[in-house]
Amino acid sequence: MIGFIGLGIMGSRMAENLIDSGYELIVHNRSKEKAARLLQKGAKWADSPKEVAKQSDVILTMLATPRAVEAVALGEHGFLPHFPKGSIWVDCSTVDPAFTRKMAEESAKRGIRFLDAPVAGSKIPAEKGELVFFVGGRKEDLEEILPLLNAMGKAIHHQGENGKGTSMKLVVNLMLAESMAAFAEAVTLGEALGLDKETVVNTLLNGPTTAPFLNGKKEHILRNYFATEFPLEHMQKDLQLMAQSAYENNVSLPLANAAKELYGLAKQYGWGQQDFSAIYGLLSTKK
Amino acid sequence: MIGFIGLGIMGSRMAENLIDSGYELIVHNRSKEKAARLLQKGAKWADSPKEVAKQSDVILTMLATPRAVEAVALGEHGFLPHFPKGSIWVDCSTVDPAFTRKMAEESAKRGIRFLDAPVAGSKIPAEKGELVFFVGGRKEDLEEILPLLNAMGKAIHHQGENGKGTSMKLVVNLMLAESMAAFAEAVTLGEALGLDKETVVNTLLNGPTTAPFLNGKKEHILRNYFATEFPLEHMQKDLQLMAQSAYENNVSLPLANAAKELYGLAKQYGWGQQDFSAIYGLLSTKK
Amino acid sequence: MIGFIGLGIMGSRMAENLIDSGYELIVHNRSKEKAARLLQKGAKWADSPKEVAKQSDVILTMLATPRAVEAVALGEHGFLPHFPKGSIWVDCSTVDPAFTRKMAEESAKRGIRFLDAPVAGSKIPAEKGELVFFVGGRKEDLEEILPLLNAMGKAIHHQGENGKGTSMKLVVNLMLAESMAAFAEAVTLGEALGLDKETVVNTLLNGPTTAPFLNGKKEHILRNYFATEFPLEHMQKDLQLMAQSAYENNVSLPLANAAKELYGLAKQYGWGQQDFSAIYGLLSTKK
Amino acid sequence: MIGFIGLGIMGSRMAENLIDSGYELIVHNRSKEKAARLLQKGAKWADSPKEVAKQSDVILTMLATPRAVEAVALGEHGFLPHFPKGSIWVDCSTVDPAFTRKMAEESAKRGIRFLDAPVAGSKIPAEKGELVFFVGGRKEDLEEILPLLNAMGKAIHHQGENGKGTSMKLVVNLMLAESMAAFAEAVTLGEALGLDKETVVNTLLNGPTTAPFLNGKKEHILRNYFATEFPLEHMQKDLQLMAQSAYENNVSLPLANAAKELYGLAKQYGWGQQDFSAIYGLLSTKK
Repeated sequence: MIGFIGLGIMGSRMAENLIDSGYELIVHNRSKEKAARLLQKGAKWADSPKEVAKQSDVILTMLATPRAVEAVALGEHGFLPHFPKGSIWVDCSTVDPAFTRKMAEESAKRGIRFLDAPVAGSKIPAEKGELVFFVGGRKEDLEEILPLLNAMGKAIHHQGENGKGTSMKLVVNLMLAESMAAFAEAVTLGEALGLDKETVVNTLLNGPTTAPFLNGKKEHILRNYFATEFPLEHMQKDLQLMAQSAYENNVSLPLANAAKELYGLAKQYGWGQQDFSAIYGLLSTKK
Repeated sequence: MIGFIGLGIMGSRMAENLIDSGYELIVHNRSKEKAARLLQKGAKWADSPKEVAKQSDVILTMLATPRAVEAVALGEHGFLPHFPKGSIWVDCSTVDPAFTRKMAEESAKRGIRFLDAPVAGSKIPAEKGELVFFVGGRKEDLEEILPLLNAMGKAIHHQGENGKGTSMKLVVNLMLAESMAAFAEAVTLGEALGLDKETVVNTLLNGPTTAPFLNGKKEHILRNYFATEFPLEHMQKDLQLMAQSAYENNVSLPLANAAKELYGLAKQYGWGQQDFSAIYGLLSTKK
Repeated sequence: MIGFIGLGIMGSRMAENLIDSGYELIVHNRSKEKAARLLQKGAKWADSPKEVAKQSDVILTMLATPRAVEAVALGEHGFLPHFPKGSIWVDCSTVDPAFTRKMAEESAKRGIRFLDAPVAGSKIPAEKGELVFFVGGRKEDLEEILPLLNAMGKAIHHQGENGKGTSMKLVVNLMLAESMAAFAEAVTLGEALGLDKETVVNTLLNGPTTAPFLNGKKEHILRNYFATEFPLEHMQKDLQLMAQSAYENNVSLPLANAAKELYGLAKQYGWGQQDFSAIYGLLSTKK
Repeated sequence: MIGFIGLGIMGSRMAENLIDSGYELIVHNRSKEKAARLLQKGAKWADSPKEVAKQSDVILTMLATPRAVEAVALGEHGFLPHFPKGSIWVDCSTVDPAFTRKMAEESAKRGIRFLDAPVAGSKIPAEKGELVFFVGGRKEDLEEILPLLNAMGKAIHHQGENGKGTSMKLVVNLMLAESMAAFAEAVTLGEALGLDKETVVNTLLNGPTTAPFLNGKKEHILRNYFATEFPLEHMQKDLQLMAQSAYENNVSLPLANAAKELYGLAKQYGWGQQDFSAIYGLLSTKK
């Protein structure tokens, strides 16, 4: 049986794809309501991470922060101490590489095999099973769980030892965060200069200066309505993880840090649970 | 006869495309050497902007800064006072919209028709006649010179009245400047986290988070060799124009300003005349 | 007779000190109401800068922006073309050194002597005649108007040729702008960490890490009430002048530019006409 | 007997003041050489933190990072598990409040009393016993060790429960970090505008816009020689702790983060072990 812990926007869709591919799932989430649809589809419910551990040999986790992952794995009723030797833990959460390595060590101590396998892609790709996985860990362990990842994703990239999957994920999200903010600034500037908003958006999206994912944010920007695909406060959290990792490895990221504070200010001003394209909301507001 | 003033990396290639399309050109540049190839191909030389004005009914200018444009138009031996009424001045330089409107007024006072027509695209598109023009000014004036622009570009977008071409250009360059810096930060972070540089670059370029133009910077980044297509110090200048225009129109651009100072620091540390991808040079240096 | 143009928060108080010291004044301002008190005290009213020029041999200007100064000097009904040869223009406005040098040249062309004499100090020192003047221009010209400056200030520092007074003023205001923002961030952080606000404020103000002028902002911060001594939007304008001057002289000011955008955002969110300590308002707001 | 762990620039001077006040000390440091002077003066040497714990009833720690504190307290040969119940641990290190609270909990679990007591002041005040302590923890515990703190400091400020001392320290260092960077930018701008460097420095230091501690950096700036009082890389570390704490408590610090990256870049370019005034070195360099 496959354990799945963390059933938010991403996790619930990933778990459903596993069920649809024929896997038997035992699931746990902080609030049980989010599991309703999965339980209807035949998933089993566990009252705690510990219970998940007792009934599965692979556990996938998809949680919002390093702290949440640590609580689920090593907190009271955490799964790691109860997980049989030789089992595999696949952490799909976006965390920082130092934390990933710590979890890998905690796993190794207990004879558990660990893979970091964070994903690129938000709500829609999660639904369609078109996520991209960046994986850190031993190749043979990855091969063993490959069918699982294939049920949820369209591409699986092995990056090296534990921590490298997480590292690549942070790199990718840095591009996302800064590109989104750049687009928001560009549209804001264009409007301030008297250009037609739609013309600006289309000119940018049809030119070579703008990342393709921003096509998916076009309506958010045009309508000032930021339906959540990837919550702004999660992007801010990821920027904090990047900043922490950059500090630990002695590199400077002036723009990422400026973006971090800007997303932070947006959160402070009430946009935290909207899509991260709401950074445009912060910049375009006039009072 | 067509006048062309400003024969740098861009201007010389644009002028050559005009000659190749059968136009007769009279050219001027601060240093005559840069005109050599054009003169061989039949262009006429003028010793001053004023001389250009006397022998042409359309003048194109392609210069580095508002100050340079103003000097050529209105300085000693400037062309504007000597340009016959009804003539057309097409300024392809990247300047700021307030300056553009000032030049439009100075032109109108003298009965000259003015178009702002800055271009997207650097060295290679200039060479191939594949620039994109953003044009501000009267439609009928644009139509009159359309064949000229078509000889140099692959797309001509009319944005509205004078200043709007310039405005769109600044918007596009904001995306360029921030995307380039974001890419440089992403690769720097990836390397610091122990990822393989080439894998990082390819992962980003093959994913949806990265602007297509960055494919053209791949070799710059991989080889740490920043062959100049668009000089870093010109990008810094454009960022200054954006910041000025944003200030004048009451919007905030925190990332663009952070980028401005980062490019400025790169210039200070010796990368000003290299390609603007040299921002990666600044960030990845360790001493 | 002494001409005085620009009767805002600062100018009105400076002019009153001149009257109180026995000088005869002819004044002009965009809106006449602001002159009421001075007219009651015996000042003469002029309907235009040009009228001021015809009746005075020294003109002081105290205006908000380079554009405003240029309009008053060289615009329609500007004073400079009508000012008798040998007269002295003292510009107390905070502008940028390049603009100051341009005004010095325009003056010189017409045989007018020019001094840049911006001031440190806001509302209260202006009222008390305790401003500090930073002066650029010829020493003998300064000596001639020294009694005037002494009527408005407590210290007059000659910095060198034209532009140097303006330059020192920008340097001083950079410290003001960044120190104020730093103080706002420090208090915001302290409160977020659960410290008592008043304790934080007092600890900082009583320690060596905090600039003395911040004592004057204590009540603003404690009461979240930002009674205008120096309007936030003027500080943002000065930061723009610093950024422009830094760009022109090839130095990077990452913090000043970050501050510029932060004050800009505060203006955008409605704090522009409050005191510049309202930067704390922007940072401490939660929605 | 008093235990003292961590004998760097600060710790060695603090420990010496304790000896000079008549306390018996047992000391430990990663490298024994740094203890030489103290051992000559009668301090006892311990080969590990654990050894310190066995022979003392108060332990003071003065270390560079949370990680270093954790290693000394809870790592292999850490002191905490061997420290008698009822003993007092006083952590003078600059860390973040979340870490402080974690150490307080680890102490409480073992019946140890814990105080966070970081200090304001660098090398010289440490030498003279003129540090300022910000203390978090129970008042009665503080009273018990007050004579110790008085031997090292001139003022002891109780801020509240555990974590509050650390919090105030971060607030104070934020002012230090930003004020130093502001001063460096101001001088850099002044020089770029052609002002005399010494005049700029003196004008700022004699005016109300500049924090008093900057008098102590005057010679560093004038001579471009940054003799280490407080290493730049420690300031960068503290900025990282502030950024982390601000993130955890939902406030934005745009300038502190810009400063963090600027100090980070300075470290990257070789100024890490010089005084933090070397931020001026980064900004004023031209290549």
